[in-house]
Amino acid sequence: MTTENSQKPHDRLAAALATDMEAVSALIRERMASEHAPRIPEVTAHLVGAGGKRLRPMLTLGAATMCGYSGPYHIHLAATVEFIHTATLLHDDVVDESAQRRGRPTANLLWDNQSSVLVGDYLFARSFQLMTEPGSMPVMRILSNAAATIAEGEVLQLTAAQNLSTSEDTYLQVVRGKTAALFSAATEVGGVIADAPEQIVKALYEYGDALGVSFQIVDDLLDYEGQAESTGKNIGDDFRERKLTLPLIKAVALADDAERAFWVRTIEKGKQEDGDLDHALALLNKHGALDATRKDALEWAEKAKNALDVLPPHEIKDMLSDLADYVVARIS
Amino acid sequence: MTTENSQKPHDRLAAALATDMEAVSALIRERMASEHAPRIPEVTAHLVGAGGKRLRPMLTLGAATMCGYSGPYHIHLAATVEFIHTATLLHDDVVDESAQRRGRPTANLLWDNQSSVLVGDYLFARSFQLMTEPGSMPVMRILSNAAATIAEGEVLQLTAAQNLSTSEDTYLQVVRGKTAALFSAATEVGGVIADAPEQIVKALYEYGDALGVSFQIVDDLLDYEGQAESTGKNIGDDFRERKLTLPLIKAVALADDAERAFWVRTIEKGKQEDGDLDHALALLNKHGALDATRKDALEWAEKAKNALDVLPPHEIKDMLSDLADYVVARIS
Repeated sequence: MTTENSQKPHDRLAAALATDMEAVSALIRERMASEHAPRIPEVTAHLVGAGGKRLRPMLTLGAATMCGYSGPYHIHLAATVEFIHTATLLHDDVVDESAQRRGRPTANLLWDNQSSVLVGDYLFARSFQLMTEPGSMPVMRILSNAAATIAEGEVLQLTAAQNLSTSEDTYLQVVRGKTAALFSAATEVGGVIADAPEQIVKALYEYGDALGVSFQIVDDLLDYEGQAESTGKNIGDDFRERKLTLPLIKAVALADDAERAFWVRTIEKGKQEDGDLDHALALLNKHGALDATRKDALEWAEKAKNALDVLPPHEIKDMLSDLADYVVARIS
Repeated sequence: MTTENSQKPHDRLAAALATDMEAVSALIRERMASEHAPRIPEVTAHLVGAGGKRLRPMLTLGAATMCGYSGPYHIHLAATVEFIHTATLLHDDVVDESAQRRGRPTANLLWDNQSSVLVGDYLFARSFQLMTEPGSMPVMRILSNAAATIAEGEVLQLTAAQNLSTSEDTYLQVVRGKTAALFSAATEVGGVIADAPEQIVKALYEYGDALGVSFQIVDDLLDYEGQAESTGKNIGDDFRERKLTLPLIKAVALADDAERAFWVRTIEKGKQEDGDLDHALALLNKHGALDATRKDALEWAEKAKNALDVLPPHEIKDMLSDLADYVVARIS
């Protein structure tokens, strides 16, 4: 029998917020339906059925609960955040031409790119309908800003791909957009809806931001050193897709002439041969790029935990702190 | 020298609203920029440079002005409406795999589908940021509902394509979504921001809705009988793309067995040969499908004009009425 503390922090959060999470799920099911276009619930049911961790809505519920809010609009905001997330997944899979998501065929493969683009648009629009319901202008501004920052980060990532001169600053900008913006908005709106003091709202934002950055760096590191079984991805996908993620940026910065020629051929020109991934991994290790990336992820997780310091004691606070540790536990 | 009344109603509206339209253009230029992702202004400048008629923002400005509103937020709402429109154009071109828009290469051709999807998302998000600025919840609800209806209509169109059993009701649902929803939201929010009485707001909605439906029916009719020089499209594009638009739906409903076999082969199975378009046009004419479609468009234009009856006299009101006539003048 597992004691409470031996459970993963994510599961403990889910248990503590179970009633609210049930309400969020019911609202998501209700709002993803479409009277007129049956393709919409087909596609969204496929995604929802694939069972994500629902981390982002839990962040909103957790933040609101910690700040003493008892409803009802944290449910709408949590569902809003999940809708935005699901819409970006649908569009990401089109942009990346992905065939798998969470170990299942992607919607663009099962239906077509058209459906993924348009159902994604539908979910975006539904998320905006949902966020109007609490009637809070500050909440609407935070969430619409987050949506713009996400799209901006995705466009920046697109133009940075294959570009060897991508800096760590640009990488951070991309990560802030594509991942951290929604994490920080999720936690921030939880505080805002609860009418928490400015200092607390700021701390919630900072926690979400740092957690999101840490989360994405871990993801990018695992792309080079993870196990396909645990990540659902193959080692080296980013290398094959010529993405400039943090490990690669660090190795390129330290490359000698011969190594640079290798990166130009494989990443800039995209001429990859058998054995190139092994050579890339050897170069990443030679320059300590994987260890340096791990260190960065740990620092961001630490930053997330420190942001929580100003919050009063609460069981959810402890779980959020443990969650930051858990995010980096896979790479420690 | 042209007298005022010999000018097209669209140009007279543009002249009457020139100062406000200048402010809308300036706001669009300001908000479509992106500090971090230069690809965004490149793509949006291409679209804006292609010079649409900016009909939708004029509807918002016109409605607000007729209702006595003098600013400043009609500018934001007009820009919001144009951003939503531009975002849908970017995504439509990906969905339709179009190569031309307004006589110029499409963004998906000049850059790639990825950029069109993500820059479209950015514009959607920017539109939601913009619509929060007036701080009016009813306005936000109208515009976010419109965005959801647009996406729903586009998905419905996708699944109705190639489906010979598509009814006129389904066609109307698609048209209401993909075209009329933004027209009616554009006029409605103009009245709402001006605090116009409910009856007036309803009339503005009905005008926009009927104008939008009429506008789309004309577009679909011109696809079969227009001139490439005036429409910027080739005759029969919808036939080649196997779209069930109103003329085709009417002809299919009256088809005998041999004709039905022709439609099954060309539309359902997509096996098109030389001469098929000519044969399709002959069938459309044989069953009076083009004339019946023309009649429907004229009725919707009439409905749009009638909706304006409850509005007090105003020069803009006359221009909007003439605009409804002008929309159908190309097919009369």
